Amino acid sequence: MTYCIAVAVKDGLVLTSDSRTNAGIDHVSVHCKMHVLPTFMDRKIILLSAGNLGTTQAVLDSLRRDIKENATTNLNTVRYLSEAAEYLGQLSVEKQQRHANAGQSGFFPAATFLLAGQISGEAHGAYLIYPEGNYIKTSSQTPYLQIGENKYGKPVLDRFLKIDTSLDEVARCCLISMDSTMRSNASVGPPIDLLIYRKDSLSLDEYYNFQDDDEYLIQVRRVWQEKLSEGFAALPDLNKQDCKAFEPAE
Amino acid sequence: MTYCIAVAVKDGLVLTSDSRTNAGIDHVSVHCKMHVLPTFMDRKIILLSAGNLGTTQAVLDSLRRDIKENATTNLNTVRYLSEAAEYLGQLSVEKQQRHANAGQSGFFPAATFLLAGQISGEAHGAYLIYPEGNYIKTSSQTPYLQIGENKYGKPVLDRFLKIDTSLDEVARCCLISMDSTMRSNASVGPPIDLLIYRKDSLSLDEYYNFQDDDEYLIQVRRVWQEKLSEGFAALPDLNKQDCKAFEPAE
Repeated sequence: MTYCIAVAVKDGLVLTSDSRTNAGIDHVSVHCKMHVLPTFMDRKIILLSAGNLGTTQAVLDSLRRDIKENATTNLNTVRYLSEAAEYLGQLSVEKQQRHANAGQSGFFPAATFLLAGQISGEAHGAYLIYPEGNYIKTSSQTPYLQIGENKYGKPVLDRFLKIDTSLDEVARCCLISMDSTMRSNASVGPPIDLLIYRKDSLSLDEYYNFQDDDEYLIQVRRVWQEKLSEGFAALPDLNKQDCKAFEPAE
Repeated sequence: MTYCIAVAVKDGLVLTSDSRTNAGIDHVSVHCKMHVLPTFMDRKIILLSAGNLGTTQAVLDSLRRDIKENATTNLNTVRYLSEAAEYLGQLSVEKQQRHANAGQSGFFPAATFLLAGQISGEAHGAYLIYPEGNYIKTSSQTPYLQIGENKYGKPVLDRFLKIDTSLDEVARCCLISMDSTMRSNASVGPPIDLLIYRKDSLSLDEYYNFQDDDEYLIQVRRVWQEKLSEGFAALPDLNKQDCKAFEPAE
């Protein structure tokens, strides 16, 4: 499994991904799921991937080849992020269908992507591309998108992410969300990649790679657990006078 | 959807359930998912149900009829909770198969149950009965079981539930877990049923039914959100000197 988050707020983007992949419980390995392609200086396009590793690698290879061979449509020719999302969706469907039809029945190598970044002159943004090739983007009401094992870490995003949350706060929130997910699901694991993109900078120089024993990560976990415990201890007692007998219903 | 939790700690049991059922998004209604059957005074057996409402109601009706007609096996004849779990599993499979075979292909009215309580002379306990009729129980390492929409509310249970956590603390933890789930999933909704069972009491007189506007529930939510926000604000800043440029991989 996998867990990736893309957040698009006023100030820019925050992208977070784990690095564990597994094809069955005895085939667990480490693969980075955050990718940037070698595009022109006027654009930065980052991809996060979940699902079948064969499909995601095939898609990435095609994206690279299309750039290198200057294909009619490639990440350097698209004028909008939405166009990039559409193009990625097409590639993804192609790769999936090729292998779905060649293999065992019931096998469908689905993959899901997050695509985020900025093209000069356009707004920054984040898109989720479904295995079917269609996509959705973030909104000011819901400034985040998730792929992979998304449920454990969703409540904390729902609580704290607003369109005007600062990039540093978004980053901390994503690390907490990732930590809750890793605690509850063994198929999501370190190292954690975190990339902060400040809008209009067209620069990717705020990248962090956290190993499991990273001091900062340990500190974040410790403070969060302490503060949650304090919060838990501060919850009011049940009003015992409100309780009643539980009776068998007919 | 549904969300129910059964916790078995040293001091007894805490059972929590939501009350929203839906058969499609335009057929949403309120059904209590916590049930106690009219058994002898030497036992208290409580059920929580998730899944197909037809199946769960059919199972409950059979349990009631078997008690009334003094069937060879009924909740009054079983000597152990594990026996009750086995019996419930059998009934559940029977009801599911009857309708699975009579209806449209692809229709399988699965249901999952939590069964908890105590039979005099035996330890209290909690069991999860799968749609296939088999079951698992809690352990001292993992003192809780969940059915229904279980992921959003799991991290908080993982953080705070230990085998020696007090019943009142367990109750607060379950309310927090339920609240996180209701925030993130519209198919889980109030009122919330909460039942605290103190071991060896054979009494069910600590039952709470929280409507969405319950003052206590609102207070718990407010304190929890405040404390989480404080915790979030207390998280250490990223060490900017640790960041580097994110480079395209080959």
